[in-house]
This record gives sequence, C-alpha cells and structure tokens, in this order.
Amino acid sequence: MPELRYDPIRLRWTIISTERGRRPHEYLVRREPAKADGCPFCYGNEHKTPPEVFYIGPPDREPNSPGWEVRVVPNKFPALKIEGELRREGMGLFDMVTGIGAHEVIIETPDHGRVMADRTPEEIQKVLLAYRERIRDLRKDSRFRYILIFKNYGAEAGASLSHPHSQLIATPIIPPVVVAELNSAREYYQRKERCIFCDLIKQELTLGDRIVWEDDDYLLWEPFASSFPFETWLLPKNHLHDFALLEDSDLYKLAKALKNMLLRIKILLKDPPYNMVLHTSPSTHLRPARPYYWSTITFDYHWHIELIPRITKIAGFEWGSGLYINPTPPEEATRYLREVEVPDV
Amino acid sequence: MPELRYDPIRLRWTIISTERGRRPHEYLVRREPAKADGCPFCYGNEHKTPPEVFYIGPPDREPNSPGWEVRVVPNKFPALKIEGELRREGMGLFDMVTGIGAHEVIIETPDHGRVMADRTPEEIQKVLLAYRERIRDLRKDSRFRYILIFKNYGAEAGASLSHPHSQLIATPIIPPVVVAELNSAREYYQRKERCIFCDLIKQELTLGDRIVWEDDDYLLWEPFASSFPFETWLLPKNHLHDFALLEDSDLYKLAKALKNMLLRIKILLKDPPYNMVLHTSPSTHLRPARPYYWSTITFDYHWHIELIPRITKIAGFEWGSGLYINPTPPEEATRYLREVEVPDV
Repeated sequence: MPELRYDPIRLRWTIISTERGRRPHEYLVRREPAKADGCPFCYGNEHKTPPEVFYIGPPDREPNSPGWEVRVVPNKFPALKIEGELRREGMGLFDMVTGIGAHEVIIETPDHGRVMADRTPEEIQKVLLAYRERIRDLRKDSRFRYILIFKNYGAEAGASLSHPHSQLIATPIIPPVVVAELNSAREYYQRKERCIFCDLIKQELTLGDRIVWEDDDYLLWEPFASSFPFETWLLPKNHLHDFALLEDSDLYKLAKALKNMLLRIKILLKDPPYNMVLHTSPSTHLRPARPYYWSTITFDYHWHIELIPRITKIAGFEWGSGLYINPTPPEEATRYLREVEVPDV
Repeated sequence: MPELRYDPIRLRWTIISTERGRRPHEYLVRREPAKADGCPFCYGNEHKTPPEVFYIGPPDREPNSPGWEVRVVPNKFPALKIEGELRREGMGLFDMVTGIGAHEVIIETPDHGRVMADRTPEEIQKVLLAYRERIRDLRKDSRFRYILIFKNYGAEAGASLSHPHSQLIATPIIPPVVVAELNSAREYYQRKERCIFCDLIKQELTLGDRIVWEDDDYLLWEPFASSFPFETWLLPKNHLHDFALLEDSDLYKLAKALKNMLLRIKILLKDPPYNMVLHTSPSTHLRPARPYYWSTITFDYHWHIELIPRITKIAGFEWGSGLYINPTPPEEATRYLREVEVPDV
C-alpha cells in the first residue's frame, strides 16, 4: 500500500509509492518510449491498459475498443491506489496518510504522432472536456482533497511514453504549491475584497511588458518572478475560481488560447520538452445544495494553466535552497515569444 | 544587474540572473564538459578563472599558479554579483532585491579525474576546510543572509564541468528551504527545549530501520519522508547548529563519514549523478562580542549534509504540486545501502 509521509523538519509530504517497487538496478535501465506498433495508447491495443473510465467518441462504441477520440484509463503503475480506507496515523515524530487516490491517464488522441500544438482547437477542446469531466466525477469521492491535471511532454520532461497523453492524480491532501496559491488569494481577498489574480492581470495589462498575447477571454503571461526561462501562464481574464465550471463553449475558446501558447513555445524553442499543469480550486468544502462539482468556498481563487519548458537543469542549489536561477528575464522572454508568428486558428 | 524577485502568489523568490543573458537558441546547444587538456580547473590554466580568493597549499606559492591542493575562485558567470548596494524595492504587487551575493567555485583537487568518493579522508578534509573558511570569511559581509554550499556531480545533476568542484552562493535572503528547517527547529525548541534533530536521531537510532551506518560522531540516515530514492542525510550525533564552528579534527572525522556515504552511493547505484548540499545556520544575528563566525541565535538548528542521487526525473506533478513520488521506501533503500561493502578508511 502506498503511503503519504510528512517530513517534520522540512514540513513537506512525499508519496512513498510501493506499487512500482523499484530496486537499485531498475533505475539504471533507461526506459525507451514504446515503439508505435506496440504502443498501449494506439488503436487496437486497448486491452494493454486497465479498462477505461471515460471516453469521447460514438455512443454505440464497444468499451475498450478502437473508435474513440479521447480515452481515459487508470494508470497501470499508479502512484496512489483507489481502493482502501483513508487512515491518518502518527508514529513518534512522523505522520502518515494511507496512499489513497486516483492516478489516471488521459489519452488525448488516437494519432500517435499528433502533438497537442499541431491539433485543431476542436480536437484540443475534447481533451479539455475530458479533463473537466474527470474532475467533476472524482470530486464525488470525499476521500480526495485535490485533483491535479498535468502533462509531461518529451522524455526530458518525464514522459515515459511518447503517445500524446496527460495525467491526473487525485490526492487525500491539498498539495503544498496549491495551498500556497490558495492562501495568497484568500489573504488578499480578506484584506481587499478583490482577487489577487484579477489585480495582477490588470496591473500587467497596464504595464504590458510581460504580456505575450491576449484576446477577449485569455492572456499569455510571463510571470514577474518566472522560475524558469520562458515559463508561461495562461490566465482567464474573467474571474472564475474553478476550471470545472467552464461550459463547452468556454472550453473551445480556451483550446484556441492553449494552442496559441503551445505553438509559440514549440516554434521559438524548437519543440522543447515541457511540463504543463492545471491549477484549479480544491475538492473540499462542497456544498450539498449546489451541484457536486462546485467548490464555492474557494471562490477567491482564480484557475489557470502553468507551463515550463524543460531547457535548464534543476540542480543542487535549487534543491537545497528552494530558490531558482533564471538566466532569461521574463520581459526578454516576452519579446521573443511575441515575435513568433502564429497561424490564425 | 541580477535581481531577486518575489512572486506574490506562490510566495517564492527567483533569481533573475542577467549576467548570463541567455537567448532562446543558446538553450538548445548542449554544453559538453570541457576536455581535460583545456580544463580551466587543471594545473597551468589558473589564468582561465577569475583570480582566486582562497587556496590550500604551500605558503610560498605564487597566487594563481599551480601547486595548490584546493583552490577557490569566483564563478566566471555568477548568478549574483558581489559589487553593489543592497536595495529592496517594490512595484505594484511585486517586490525585488538587487542581486547582491557571492558565487564561488571550490576546485576540490588538481586531479581532473579524482572524484570525491575515491579520495583519502585527508584530501576530503581539505575541501571541508575550504568550505568552512569561505563561510567564515563571507559572514563578515553584512549584506549576506545565508551561505549555501552545494555540489552537482555529473551532467545529469547540472554540472557543466567535469573537474571535481563544489559551489558556494551567498544570498541576501535566507532561502525558503532553509527557512522551513530553521522554523521547525525553532518552534520545536520553544515548545520542548530540545532540538528536533537530536530527538529525531534518538528515535531513529532506537527504531533502526532507516540507519545506514553510524560511528561515534556521525550517522547516515534515509529520511522517513525521503523525496527521492536513496536520498541520504549525513547528520552529526552531537548537537551543533553551525558547521563553521567545527575544528580541523572534527573535519577529519566528517571527511571519513562523507567518504563512507559517497562510496555506498557510488557502488550501489553505479556512480550516479547526484546533488549534495550543506545546511547550516544563517549568517544573520551575529553577536559582536563573539567571534565573527558564530551565529548563536539559531543555536536550536542542527547542521547536516543532504544528498540526492539524480536517478529519477522531476516532472509536471512534482512541479505543480510540490509533492514528490518516491518509488523506493527509505527502509528498503537502507537495507541496500547497508549491504554495500565499504573498505575501512
């Protein structure tokens, strides 16, 4: 059984994931991305994954067979396990929580080589729709406090399979990076009755030198304190705490903005590896009188997407200090990203 | 001028390091470790580095010439700059501090291929002595709040040169990872009048299943909530907040323990890349009546060394959540590391 363990000195949780059971020599073998013909995410190989939990495609399709457009399956080697009771325990100085959670893979397209930046907004919209539906569904499970959706693109960014996919991990705690953002938004709102993200967007649109692109609904922003070169955030201009509240038509607009971001990064940095993460409000504090997927208590939060190209190394200084060294000021990154010619979609 | 910038949402500092001025295409060129004959850290190439600030070797040696055993030079491409005034400024939602600091390279040996694990304790002691002397010296500069010493071993761990070296960065803020550890120690001490590290060591020696090795003075420990497989801490058994207070004879004992740790990791994981970091008390709150290198206010801290082998990838989940997934429980890692046969030194 996996376990979440708390470090009493660093005040930090780690997932000890026994499911993969890795012995020393197993780390030394470089896992190659699976070849296209044997890829478990391609048509005809549906039996190579655990049974699907969601799909987009024809309603009369046989489950776990070809014909899908987007397919969601449990991860074959989950970091956390869905079965079991959530127990919190202590032992001396240490605290732990049983490793209950969900770990799913969103297979974004049947086309092995069709990376997200090159897909149509309609295709990307379907991936976002799968994100939303999985969040809404998993929020019914009261053991989960947070549902994090992320995408590792390229082996250097941690992807072990090259077929386009995103992942989802539901955790029995709210992850610390999210807690920090939630707390900032909460404190700011309590003091000013305004959203810190909304104020930030207003300030940045006025100053202008870190705005890569905008339309009526979204903007691409290089954070003032970008931890990595060309780190880029996609923010909705209108205040909304929860991604799962978006309508299908909102998702289409978002798909266009997302494609815009991915294309700029792909063209400027020659298709670099990247990590992308969706930050939305947590699953706690659901109000029974509202639809299950509302989480109204954190209305002061502001959902967004963060992307980091993996073109620099995280080394000893970053690890030991928690400080990042970014050699490209975000204002410079903005100028480069702005100049990229993106075909109108 | 480099700049430290504070993120008002993530509550985190980043160093924007303009000295290196990296444009998009420069990230795409893989920098190869320098060849031995042109290595700026080898004998005869002393002019290829900025002038040295410290060395160990014959007293009558000509500065910046061969003959040294350990040599410390400013980093040619420093993340922070030593010259200038420390200014703290705000702009709208943002805060910054001028990028004042020191960034030095500790060249550990003249022998290009002599990795630390294979050196004698006497040789390692001299490196530790250089660490201590640089900390003591840089603490005289009241602009610096913290001095972090770290080592990146192997290109995968971020080393851009293969000649054995460590680095030192002095920062005008206390880094957040250190702040978290200092606060834990402080709070625990205020409540119990005992050191949290000392209590942890006592508990772990009693339980035993995460102790890799011990002698009278030091122990090698796999943290209960290890963030990475085979993460290993080297802890002094006796309470001491500050590494810089160690005597030469203490450093010899430490060198033996450090060699023991490095050898176990090297043998078990086939010479993996790793990051190593020295955590000691900060430079603030010096008492004029005490020697300059004392920092007595944080006496509740407990210095130690942390090592992470870089055999797994940090990916989107870790970045977006702040949670780490470790597939090897520390108890298992302990068993493997214990079994490694280390020659008596």
